[in-house]
Amino acid sequence: MIIDRHIGLYTDLYELTMAQGFYLMGQGEKTAVFDYFFRKSPFGGSFAVFAGLDDLLELIENFRYDSEDIEYLRKIGFKEDFLNYLKNFKFTGDIYSVAEGEVVFPYEPLFRVHAPLIEAQILETIVLNILNFETLIATKAARMKIASKGKMVIDFGLRRAQGFGGIHASKAAVIGGAETTSNVYSSMLFGLTPAGTMAHSWIQSFDSEYEAFKTFADIYQDKTVLLLDTYDTLKSGILNAVKVGKYLENQGRRLLGVRLDSGDLLTLSKECRKILDENGLDYVKIVASNMLDEYRIDDLMQKGAPIDIFGVGTNLVVGRSDAALDGVYKLISIDGVPKMKISNDPEKVLLPGVKNILRYYDENGLFKKDLVVLEEKLKEQGEAEEILLKPVLSSGKRIHTRKPVKSIVEYAKSRIEKLPDSLKNIYKPQVYNVSVCNSVLNLRNSMIKSLSGGFDESTFNS
Amino acid sequence: MIIDRHIGLYTDLYELTMAQGFYLMGQGEKTAVFDYFFRKSPFGGSFAVFAGLDDLLELIENFRYDSEDIEYLRKIGFKEDFLNYLKNFKFTGDIYSVAEGEVVFPYEPLFRVHAPLIEAQILETIVLNILNFETLIATKAARMKIASKGKMVIDFGLRRAQGFGGIHASKAAVIGGAETTSNVYSSMLFGLTPAGTMAHSWIQSFDSEYEAFKTFADIYQDKTVLLLDTYDTLKSGILNAVKVGKYLENQGRRLLGVRLDSGDLLTLSKECRKILDENGLDYVKIVASNMLDEYRIDDLMQKGAPIDIFGVGTNLVVGRSDAALDGVYKLISIDGVPKMKISNDPEKVLLPGVKNILRYYDENGLFKKDLVVLEEKLKEQGEAEEILLKPVLSSGKRIHTRKPVKSIVEYAKSRIEKLPDSLKNIYKPQVYNVSVCNSVLNLRNSMIKSLSGGFDESTFNS
Repeated sequence: MIIDRHIGLYTDLYELTMAQGFYLMGQGEKTAVFDYFFRKSPFGGSFAVFAGLDDLLELIENFRYDSEDIEYLRKIGFKEDFLNYLKNFKFTGDIYSVAEGEVVFPYEPLFRVHAPLIEAQILETIVLNILNFETLIATKAARMKIASKGKMVIDFGLRRAQGFGGIHASKAAVIGGAETTSNVYSSMLFGLTPAGTMAHSWIQSFDSEYEAFKTFADIYQDKTVLLLDTYDTLKSGILNAVKVGKYLENQGRRLLGVRLDSGDLLTLSKECRKILDENGLDYVKIVASNMLDEYRIDDLMQKGAPIDIFGVGTNLVVGRSDAALDGVYKLISIDGVPKMKISNDPEKVLLPGVKNILRYYDENGLFKKDLVVLEEKLKEQGEAEEILLKPVLSSGKRIHTRKPVKSIVEYAKSRIEKLPDSLKNIYKPQVYNVSVCNSVLNLRNSMIKSLSGGFDESTFNS
Repeated sequence: MIIDRHIGLYTDLYELTMAQGFYLMGQGEKTAVFDYFFRKSPFGGSFAVFAGLDDLLELIENFRYDSEDIEYLRKIGFKEDFLNYLKNFKFTGDIYSVAEGEVVFPYEPLFRVHAPLIEAQILETIVLNILNFETLIATKAARMKIASKGKMVIDFGLRRAQGFGGIHASKAAVIGGAETTSNVYSSMLFGLTPAGTMAHSWIQSFDSEYEAFKTFADIYQDKTVLLLDTYDTLKSGILNAVKVGKYLENQGRRLLGVRLDSGDLLTLSKECRKILDENGLDYVKIVASNMLDEYRIDDLMQKGAPIDIFGVGTNLVVGRSDAALDGVYKLISIDGVPKMKISNDPEKVLLPGVKNILRYYDENGLFKKDLVVLEEKLKEQGEAEEILLKPVLSSGKRIHTRKPVKSIVEYAKSRIEKLPDSLKNIYKPQVYNVSVCNSVLNLRNSMIKSLSGGFDESTFNS
C-alpha cells in the first residue's frame, strides 16, 4: 500500500466533526464497539470472499496527523484543543476479524473494533473504503475462476481501474482466484509475478505482422505470446503465429501462446486450435480477452471453447456491474451497553451485542451453516467446527505480521473449495444458512421495545 | 495526487516488455503519435466531461524509475541495457489535449502524445487509468447536477469508493458538478471545502436523540445539520430537530439543515418541510441521501420533493452502473507515416492521422457540431469558433502550471451550459453531430486497402 503521510485525512469530514464533538464532550474515552458487515452478497451470488484485511491493518497502524494536516484542519475550523489531541492520535484499540480470504455471508459481523469511541469513529471511512472494495473484487475474481472450471484467469484491468483503486484491485483479484496480474506496481508491492503479452501498437510499429512476431520471439523466446487480431486473426495472425512457432522449434524452443482479443472468441479459438494442432503446435496455449466476465467465460466453457487462459480486464477490476459492496460500520455497544439503530426498513435493523460466527460442516466436509452468536455465549456452542472472528490487533499493535499474499490466496482457495456447488452457481445460487442465535435475537427484541428515540412530548414546547 | 516514487511501475507489464523490445531493436527513438479517445459516452448519455488532465500531466512529469524499481525489474527478467535506459527515463515528448472540464463526444481525439515510441508506449496505462476514471466520474456528476435542476449535489461516497480511487473520484465529482465533497484528503489536495453532517453513531452514543442534537448544535451552532432517521424520522427526528431549531433561535442562531437518510424521501421531505415551516423554520434546508443517482434525483424533482441538497455516495463515486469508461490509447503514426489497426468490428476501426477538433455554435450560442480534421488541414476550416486540442506539455514540460480546481469547475459549468437541452436529457438524449472531414476519411480508406496484415503465403513453409 501507499502509506501516504496524510492518510489520517483520508476520511469523511463528519468522522472528524463527530470526533471533535466526542472530545469536547469528554466522552471520547468511552469504550465503543463497531461491527463491519454487508447486507447483500455482490453480483447476485450467495457468498463473498473477505479481502483487504492486511492493507487495512497497515493503514490503521499508520493512521496519524502530521503538522501539515493539523494546519489544514485548523484552517477549516477545527478547535485547538481537539487539534492538540489529534497531534498525538494513534489507534490504541483491539480488533477482531475473520481471516483474509474467508468465504463470508450477508449480515455476518466480519470485522469488529473495540476502542475509545473517538478512535473507533475516526477509523470508519478507511475501514469501509478498503474492506468494501477489496472484498468486492476478490468475490468477482472467485466467480470468474469458478466459471473458468480451473482454467487460468489473469487480471489485465489496470487501464480501466478506478484511478489508484487499481493498486488494491489487482491484489484482491489474485486473492479471489486470478492467477496473476499485468499490474507491475501491485506485483512488486505484494510479491506477485506479473504477466503480459503485447499490444497492437507493437505489431503496427513494424512493416509486417510476421516481422513484429519474429522480433518479439527473438527477444522473449519461450515467453512469447502473440496477439493475433491486428489485421485479421484467421487470414493473417494465426498463420504468422504458426510460422513463428516453427521458427522457435527450429531453435529448440516453444511458442508459449497466442492471444485472441476481438471477434467471436468461440469460433476463433476453435479455428486457431485446429490450425495450431495441424501444424504440430498442440502445446501452444490460447489466451482470450475482450470484455470477459463470469457469464461470458461460463458460456465459452459450456460450448467447449479451447481457451487455456482468460485475460480479464474491466469487468474484474471495477467489479462490474455492482461496482461497490454495500458494507457498513455500525456502533453496537458503548461502555458495555448494547446500542442499535432502529429502522422502518427491516433489512436495515442491526444485530446488537458483541458477536462471533460459528461455522459448521456437513458430512462431506463442506460448509453447512453459520451461526451468529454472542461472544459471551460462545462456549455454550460446543459442537462448532470453527470460530471465525479472531483477534488481529491488540492495543493498537498487529498480532501477526503481514501475511504473504500467496498464503492468503491458498487460504481463499481452500475455503472456496469447501462451498457446496449449489452455492457457487454464478446464476441462481442457493442461499447459505446463516442463523442468529436466540441470545442475539432476544437482545434485539428487547432493545426495539425500549428504544423510543427519546422524543418526549412534554419537553417539546419548553 | 499521491506522487509515489514507484509511479513508473504503475503500468501493465506489457508496456515495459514492448518498451524493452523497441529499445533492443533500436527503434525506440522513432517518433510515435498516440491518440486517446472513447467509443461510447457513459451512462447512455450523449456527452462526457473530460477530467483528469492535470493529475495525469503531473504523473507524466514525475514518471521515473528509482534504484528499487530497477532492482525489481531486474529480478523479473529485464535486461541490463534496458534497465540502464530506464534509470534515466523521463518523458521528453509533446502533448496536446482538450481542456480539463471540456464537454466531449465519442470518437473524438481528446489527448494526443507525440514522443519517441518507447516513451509514448510506456505512458499508455497511466493515461488510460487516469483519464478513463476521472472522465467517468465527472460525467456522472454532471448528469446528477442536471437532474437536480440547480439544487446542490454533494459527494458523500468515499466509504464506497474503489480504494484509493476515492482520491480522484471526489475531485472529478466536483469538476462535473458536485458542489463539494465529504472527502477531507481530496479537499486538502485540491483546495476544496469539505462538507458533512453526523452519523447515526453520534446519536446512539447519547442517552436521547434530543441530547445528541442539542450537544451537536452547542458545538457547531450555525453549521448544524441533524440526521433524522436514527429512531423514527417523523415521530422523533423532525420533532427533536424543531426543538433544537427553536433552541438555536433563542441564541440568535439558525439551524442549517436536517438530513433524511432512509425511507420514502418524497413523502418524508414533504412532511418535514411542512413541520419545519409550521414552526417558523422555513429557512432550514433539507438534505436527502440514500442510494441516490440521476434517475432518483430526477424523479424526486419531477414530483416536487422540497429537497435542497442531494448527498450522493456510491452511485456517484464508482460511476455506477457503467463503472468504467472504455477509453483507448492508439498508435496513429510513426515517423510521420500514419498507422491504423484494422478490425472486423467496424466500431473498432480507428481514425488515422494527426487530428484536431473544431467546434461550431448555433445561433443561440449553443454547441451545434464538431468536426474532426487533420491538423495540417486546420487552416482550411476558417469558420470554426473553436479549436479544441491545444498544446499542454512541450518537450516534457508543462506549458501551464496546474490550474486551481475551482477554475476547472467554472470552465466545465460554462461548457455544460452550452449543451442544448436535448443533449442533456439523462434518459434518451439526441446524438451530437460529430463529423469527420474528408481528409481523414480518405486517409482511412486508402489505408484499409493497403493493409493486408503482411502474411505472405510464399514464406509460410520456409
